[in-house]
Amino acid sequence: MTERAKTSLAVLGATGSIGRSVLDIVGRYPDRYEIMVLAAHHNAEALAELALQHRPRHVVLTGSEAFPLLESRLSETDIHLHQGDAALLSCLDEDIDLTVNGISGIAGLLPSLRVLQHGGTLAIANKESLVAAGALLKDTCQRYDGIILPTDSEHNAIFQVWYERHVKTISHITLTASGGPFLTTPIEDFPHITAEQALRHPRWSMGPKISIDSATMMNKGLEIIEACVLFDLPEHQVEVMVHPQSVIHGMITYSDGSTLAQLGPADMRVPLSYVLAWPDRLPWLAESQDATDHPKLDFSKLDFMPLDPARFPSVELARQAWRQGGLAPCIMNAANEVAVTAFLQHQIGFADIMASVEHTLSVMSVGKEISLESVLDSNDEAMAVTRSWIAKKGK
Amino acid sequence: MTERAKTSLAVLGATGSIGRSVLDIVGRYPDRYEIMVLAAHHNAEALAELALQHRPRHVVLTGSEAFPLLESRLSETDIHLHQGDAALLSCLDEDIDLTVNGISGIAGLLPSLRVLQHGGTLAIANKESLVAAGALLKDTCQRYDGIILPTDSEHNAIFQVWYERHVKTISHITLTASGGPFLTTPIEDFPHITAEQALRHPRWSMGPKISIDSATMMNKGLEIIEACVLFDLPEHQVEVMVHPQSVIHGMITYSDGSTLAQLGPADMRVPLSYVLAWPDRLPWLAESQDATDHPKLDFSKLDFMPLDPARFPSVELARQAWRQGGLAPCIMNAANEVAVTAFLQHQIGFADIMASVEHTLSVMSVGKEISLESVLDSNDEAMAVTRSWIAKKGK
Repeated sequence: MTERAKTSLAVLGATGSIGRSVLDIVGRYPDRYEIMVLAAHHNAEALAELALQHRPRHVVLTGSEAFPLLESRLSETDIHLHQGDAALLSCLDEDIDLTVNGISGIAGLLPSLRVLQHGGTLAIANKESLVAAGALLKDTCQRYDGIILPTDSEHNAIFQVWYERHVKTISHITLTASGGPFLTTPIEDFPHITAEQALRHPRWSMGPKISIDSATMMNKGLEIIEACVLFDLPEHQVEVMVHPQSVIHGMITYSDGSTLAQLGPADMRVPLSYVLAWPDRLPWLAESQDATDHPKLDFSKLDFMPLDPARFPSVELARQAWRQGGLAPCIMNAANEVAVTAFLQHQIGFADIMASVEHTLSVMSVGKEISLESVLDSNDEAMAVTRSWIAKKGK
Repeated sequence: MTERAKTSLAVLGATGSIGRSVLDIVGRYPDRYEIMVLAAHHNAEALAELALQHRPRHVVLTGSEAFPLLESRLSETDIHLHQGDAALLSCLDEDIDLTVNGISGIAGLLPSLRVLQHGGTLAIANKESLVAAGALLKDTCQRYDGIILPTDSEHNAIFQVWYERHVKTISHITLTASGGPFLTTPIEDFPHITAEQALRHPRWSMGPKISIDSATMMNKGLEIIEACVLFDLPEHQVEVMVHPQSVIHGMITYSDGSTLAQLGPADMRVPLSYVLAWPDRLPWLAESQDATDHPKLDFSKLDFMPLDPARFPSVELARQAWRQGGLAPCIMNAANEVAVTAFLQHQIGFADIMASVEHTLSVMSVGKEISLESVLDSNDEAMAVTRSWIAKKGK
């Protein structure tokens, strides 16, 4: 057992797949971590259960409807309960060593900014905020001496083999893509794809938003932008390779012929344990007696193929938005969030998701200045434009 | 162009495949490197040509027969010419920043020790000396504050993703093996394998000794021991995986589920450029206009399979020798050197190579004490024992 103080954590999006994976690891090391803040949006039931298990100092529900349920479940504890977005931000003013942001969508932006404004360490799995407001997050990080740890599996892979001294000799980086559930579905069947089919990802078990993004491969488009932001690389140095087995997650290729890669099972606990222990590593698998902790990494056949832009136009759309610059990535991201929700609610078809995004991008001005106000305004406007287009389409 | 002094190099085994690859890279950066010493064993013709091209200060031919030829070829130059093993060691007393030891066989041991005794930096591609006298090399390195850079492609791969801080959480490392030319040859055909067939390696173009070692896979056995020495790992933490495409060269698997790997074309210039530039990288591929410098790295299908111990008993033999300890690896290596030469000279069959090694290991005492004397004595004795067994067999 170590003598040093425990690492204090804030886990945002605690009831989602990122949050649960974090807590799975953290729960194994009670002497090493303590939870300062657990936050979720609306799943009060699950949040209360996690709170009883992990005994955080603060629990925040940002949505309002289920707050009474949370209160009644945790009434016998000394845990401080809070409700709403502003309360979440206040809780992040506590003395926190590491915040894991597993919030889905643009809602993750303000909490990330707050952490960085305190010069905190932010493990960021919330790609939408990096896409919409990358420059803002990076500037804030730099100004207040914060630290951003790439946490998305592909970016974490690259982070694991990143060596600052070799950055100038990088030829390109490669993000792998499983290709999602529709890699081999005939394109003519795309209009008939249902939400239920799209939610069945062949490799990763994830929340609904990212599962649909994986099915359209907009997820990979967002990740290209995320990589440009996190690693400060031009878009043409960020390549994508389809790799259905998801064994290799990311690679750096140097102009001396070497490629360095991280490989691992399709289990978010692997990258999350890395950011939790960074700059060390946690030997959680070696210490586990649980066979389900040891998914077999099947090396036997690894396939790689180029991405088919006709099948997945989202990736080129994202590259264009990034090259266009300004608020284009923000607008694209907002339109996509609305379209994915509409698809999940059976309001539009699968192919309409990208059509919605393209439409919104085509009618809005992308501006230039990226500030918190311009990002939030453009996000709201893009959402409204997309909703209105979808509503008209539904008629 | 940089202002700092050039890196001075000694290239041992200059006319072999390692030496030529080093000189190919070095020749591209005349402002960065200068050759202090070029050495080869008997190919005076090639050595003279390389000397005229690279203008080293000293040229050494360790064999004696062809020395007059070297003298006549380089008579018009101011290059200092030397002959013999002792002269090579004296030349290594010069002010040398980096020595690349590409000598084949136990002959590489004394030069490596000399470099380390000066606290020099040694890029060691001579695996036999590491196998026969690993403890001696490591002790010398430590005592005189030298540096050993792993240069064999598999070990260099591991070195590229090695991070001292994470050593304690290593689960295991993996050396990949192409499987050589006889991966799928029916085992019953092994007695009829000729030297010419064995020299045709499917992936790598290398010297005769290492090509035969790859065919028997004793090369991988030697590399397991080399890895134990270089990375200070127990033998059971060094795994081997057959990977016919030779795209992934080596991996480190951590007990947090992450595996880090180096990938690259089967071209020794890739690991060699890394040790030449270490701790930086040389963007030699980006700067090259020569299409032959850009071997395509074909990711499309990567196969991995376990090693078949019935087909390749050499690997388990090497593990046993390492576990046995003492001079067993030295004896095994010496017997193998003699047996490979005998096979190349058509004195014994392919399957007799391992039989020779097993015989010599079974009749010699492995001792305990590893010193320069005991290593050289055991090496000589093992060679004599093997030669005598082979001579009897030939009758």
